[in-house]
Amino acid sequence: MGAGAGQGRARIAVDAMGGDGAPDEVVAGALLAAGKGLTPILFGPAGLETGGLELVEAPDVIGMREKPSEAVRAKPDSSLVAACRAVAAGHADAVVSAGSTGAMLAAGLIHLRRLEGVARPAIAVVIPTARGPSLLLDAGANADARPEHLLQFAAMGSIFARELLAVASPEVRLLSIGEEPEKGNQLTLEAHALLANAADLGFAGNAESGDLLAGAADVVVCDGFTGNVALKLLEGTISTLLDALRLEIASTPSGRLGGLLIRPAAQRLRDRLDPDTYGGAYLLGLRGLSVIAHGNSSRAAIGNAIRLAARGVERDVVARLAASMPERRSATTV
Amino acid sequence: MGAGAGQGRARIAVDAMGGDGAPDEVVAGALLAAGKGLTPILFGPAGLETGGLELVEAPDVIGMREKPSEAVRAKPDSSLVAACRAVAAGHADAVVSAGSTGAMLAAGLIHLRRLEGVARPAIAVVIPTARGPSLLLDAGANADARPEHLLQFAAMGSIFARELLAVASPEVRLLSIGEEPEKGNQLTLEAHALLANAADLGFAGNAESGDLLAGAADVVVCDGFTGNVALKLLEGTISTLLDALRLEIASTPSGRLGGLLIRPAAQRLRDRLDPDTYGGAYLLGLRGLSVIAHGNSSRAAIGNAIRLAARGVERDVVARLAASMPERRSATTV
Repeated sequence: MGAGAGQGRARIAVDAMGGDGAPDEVVAGALLAAGKGLTPILFGPAGLETGGLELVEAPDVIGMREKPSEAVRAKPDSSLVAACRAVAAGHADAVVSAGSTGAMLAAGLIHLRRLEGVARPAIAVVIPTARGPSLLLDAGANADARPEHLLQFAAMGSIFARELLAVASPEVRLLSIGEEPEKGNQLTLEAHALLANAADLGFAGNAESGDLLAGAADVVVCDGFTGNVALKLLEGTISTLLDALRLEIASTPSGRLGGLLIRPAAQRLRDRLDPDTYGGAYLLGLRGLSVIAHGNSSRAAIGNAIRLAARGVERDVVARLAASMPERRSATTV
Repeated sequence: MGAGAGQGRARIAVDAMGGDGAPDEVVAGALLAAGKGLTPILFGPAGLETGGLELVEAPDVIGMREKPSEAVRAKPDSSLVAACRAVAAGHADAVVSAGSTGAMLAAGLIHLRRLEGVARPAIAVVIPTARGPSLLLDAGANADARPEHLLQFAAMGSIFARELLAVASPEVRLLSIGEEPEKGNQLTLEAHALLANAADLGFAGNAESGDLLAGAADVVVCDGFTGNVALKLLEGTISTLLDALRLEIASTPSGRLGGLLIRPAAQRLRDRLDPDTYGGAYLLGLRGLSVIAHGNSSRAAIGNAIRLAARGVERDVVARLAASMPERRSATTV
């Protein structure tokens, strides 16, 4: 990590041109997060109105539909890639973007590079459950994964939950289609065996997807295809269901009155389940901290993402991952 | 199939000992469904109180925790296996059980056997979406699947949607992690190419899981691991979310009043989303119609499952699948 780590002066490189609301919402979010020893550095075109925040010129922009690795190679001076390069060069301690997830992953692999002992970085997402935050990974970095990758995801997730979610002894579960060890596909059956052998992991067996929102475990691991399907299904179902309920309620006069009376309760629930509460997804396994905010992030969500990146800097998450992953590798794969 | 097909005198073999409420709820559900040319035949131990329905003696019971294929081989006289055998022998036109899904699959493979041209049977589940019923398959029969299996699932699902869900030209989509053809894992990328080449299928591209409850397509295909994760996540999220909303509402006096006023609306929504509305899951691809009801089915749900099985008999779904699958096979794999 750079000079800011552990000292409460985290410098966060922010891709000003990433996301649906860029650059206005991103700049506004950075301004919300600035202060108290947190210094956002904006990456974007010359002349961008930054409200007084530092601007590093990055004239290019990577669009959401561009092929990630090609775009990252072709546009080293894009706001997204330049922000990643700033972390690699030690000019910033972490990077935040609401731009293309694939481009962030590609830029991370090329410019931040993997930690020793990490075969594949993973996208980790915090699900706000009834029993507190639950970390789901991989949420989409690796559409195809091998059992040993899932073991590494579990190890990284466990460190993350301890350091950033303040869970003393994180319980880790493997997402599968039954709680019994023999339920699953080839990947989960083999991963289950590896996880069960890793005694220090806090592995508690399989989790079923039906328990994800209720709080299946502190850390839930799966391949990136399954995790992405699960995450989008969770978000989409919550949204569709609450919309459907609102329509049903609005269909009768007494329902409409009731709807007014329960509005505060419904809003509390929406706030609690808001994916923006935790500010986005983390790319774990790189030599630098990288946070991917939702493409449709509001300024508040961008602010949360930047604050969460800063917390990762303060807790020195990357250094802790760097220290423990090679150990784990020698303990489990030799 | 069998003598009753197409004549409105469907004989449905019902596993009286399957499910949490067996035998009482099962018998009650069979009595609800009986009549109007539908004849349930109960399979269970001698002396079972059947309310006047025909009983075929089957002294053994397969438990939910037993290893499916071992149990099916070891207990040919269990209620579940005997009911399947009755279909194979032509004594009944379809079988319904709320018992072990794995045992039903094993019994189906052994006693009903696969249709020509079908490499793997699939579990098909009807999701009640805002835009009408949507068929998801495979929901768990094949934890690991190959691209050509997904093509067969699509073909079977399309016939099912046309015959049993009354969709004239079913739209088929592939569940993946992005709408673009190049988004997915190895399995979905290859399956996408196969599906896109099958011009008569009504393939409309990838579906994202976030749209499942809103109504992504008439038929959504995936491997059984992904489908089972998706289905359980959908059901679990609906249940957890509505429970959480009820708790929030109950936490203030005005919320409680509002809760009373919206109760009818919430109940209408719950009824619409009730997985029992469509009576369970279908095992497609066997030489006999097989319906798996939820383990916790009420008598009403059992009744629905039996009626749906009867509708499958009336529409001659198995014969239609039998007629079209070998054609498809020669058209796509030669």
